[in-house]
Amino acid sequence: MRLLTGVGVGPGDPELVTVKAVRVLREADVVFVPVLADGPEGPGRAEATVRAHVDGDTVRAVPFALSDRGGRSAERLDAWDEAARAVVSAFEEGASRIAFATIGDPNIYSTFSYLAQTVRTLMPSVDVATVPGITAMQDLASRSGTVLAEGREVLALFPMTAGLDAYEQALEAFDTVVAYKGGRFLPEMLRAVDKTGRTAETVFGAALGLPEEVVGPVADLAPETVDGAPYLSTVITTARRRERGGAL
Amino acid sequence: MRLLTGVGVGPGDPELVTVKAVRVLREADVVFVPVLADGPEGPGRAEATVRAHVDGDTVRAVPFALSDRGGRSAERLDAWDEAARAVVSAFEEGASRIAFATIGDPNIYSTFSYLAQTVRTLMPSVDVATVPGITAMQDLASRSGTVLAEGREVLALFPMTAGLDAYEQALEAFDTVVAYKGGRFLPEMLRAVDKTGRTAETVFGAALGLPEEVVGPVADLAPETVDGAPYLSTVITTARRRERGGAL
Repeated sequence: MRLLTGVGVGPGDPELVTVKAVRVLREADVVFVPVLADGPEGPGRAEATVRAHVDGDTVRAVPFALSDRGGRSAERLDAWDEAARAVVSAFEEGASRIAFATIGDPNIYSTFSYLAQTVRTLMPSVDVATVPGITAMQDLASRSGTVLAEGREVLALFPMTAGLDAYEQALEAFDTVVAYKGGRFLPEMLRAVDKTGRTAETVFGAALGLPEEVVGPVADLAPETVDGAPYLSTVITTARRRERGGAL
Repeated sequence: MRLLTGVGVGPGDPELVTVKAVRVLREADVVFVPVLADGPEGPGRAEATVRAHVDGDTVRAVPFALSDRGGRSAERLDAWDEAARAVVSAFEEGASRIAFATIGDPNIYSTFSYLAQTVRTLMPSVDVATVPGITAMQDLASRSGTVLAEGREVLALFPMTAGLDAYEQALEAFDTVVAYKGGRFLPEMLRAVDKTGRTAETVFGAALGLPEEVVGPVADLAPETVDGAPYLSTVITTARRRERGGAL
């Protein structure tokens, strides 16, 4: 048996990983954790969460590019290929169960799906499974006291790579709009939020669960935060502000 | 301190609860679990997951109505009020930390937001927090080998209480459409999926993680499953079928 499991390790807080994820990580012969080739953002969190629950020599770092930054560039394809070859080598060296840790959920805007495709192309006998993980959207909702959706409300989950025009249209049409990976577009995003009259119902989150965490209403953001927001920023706009006595 | 925490306990599999949820449930003076007034669906799962991780006398069942079935009917308002009064009584009896277990995530189509509002109306000194949980959408994606979203794809999360016409429009407009709580509308939903040419990219799930679980492509569903699907059914339509060697 050769089983590759994409394990969602949540948004960064080592406690926001499932009991099943911990078990699968501990049972794996090898645990790969992506380490970002072009900066310290994001995937470093996967390693921190893995090391909080798995001790020992099974953990191996692989260089990896963030999903969606700049499309399927040659550099990113190279990084996926390198990671896939590392997984295949580990199977060839005798591993039967390999886990690949991903921040968030392995089926939602994760690089795991690309990796799994490449591994199966190189080694078709590999079975692929996933373990779901808590997403940044859910963590930000919890930390900001925001109800994401109630009753008949429809929620749109939106990667900013889909474009600013489409984002503004989503704000016009949807009860709840969650925008991912919007860091460098944040000034333009906040103008779209303002234009559609939804500033009071919009919260921002970055570096969730880390010492440098920023969570709060977009109306309260410092200018330097708006201009320097990290790639993995999340913006949630809800149907109306629903104060719950949360952390805001 | 009086703290009420809505704890997401995931979709049914007791392992799909976070490490943080387990800690908060164990540290609580009282853990309320909703027990459905009008049938065995759904909330029974919350109790099973709680009892898998918390032993002892802190667990109390409260009758509760499923969110969204029939709107804010008088009967459902009564059930929320009764649950809220039980929480307030427990605080008055000396509890300082109360957990309320909800299936899925407490900020996504959960009855917890209504409960928390009512508790704070009755007892304004109560602080409210939430712990996120794995949603049925994520569990079904994992069990069916379905990638929910990649790259620039936009995902719409859609409660069938929003209506069949709106569902068909969503299928026309979105890369990924996830429909919740569609059980009794399933025959009409499948016609809308067929009409928009997306049958091959659509999977169905019900009773996830339970012995009676049904997971698979909608094209393979037995007629009796289509006609008798439970309320808490989930239907996922993706941009294209992405075979990953999963369970399908």
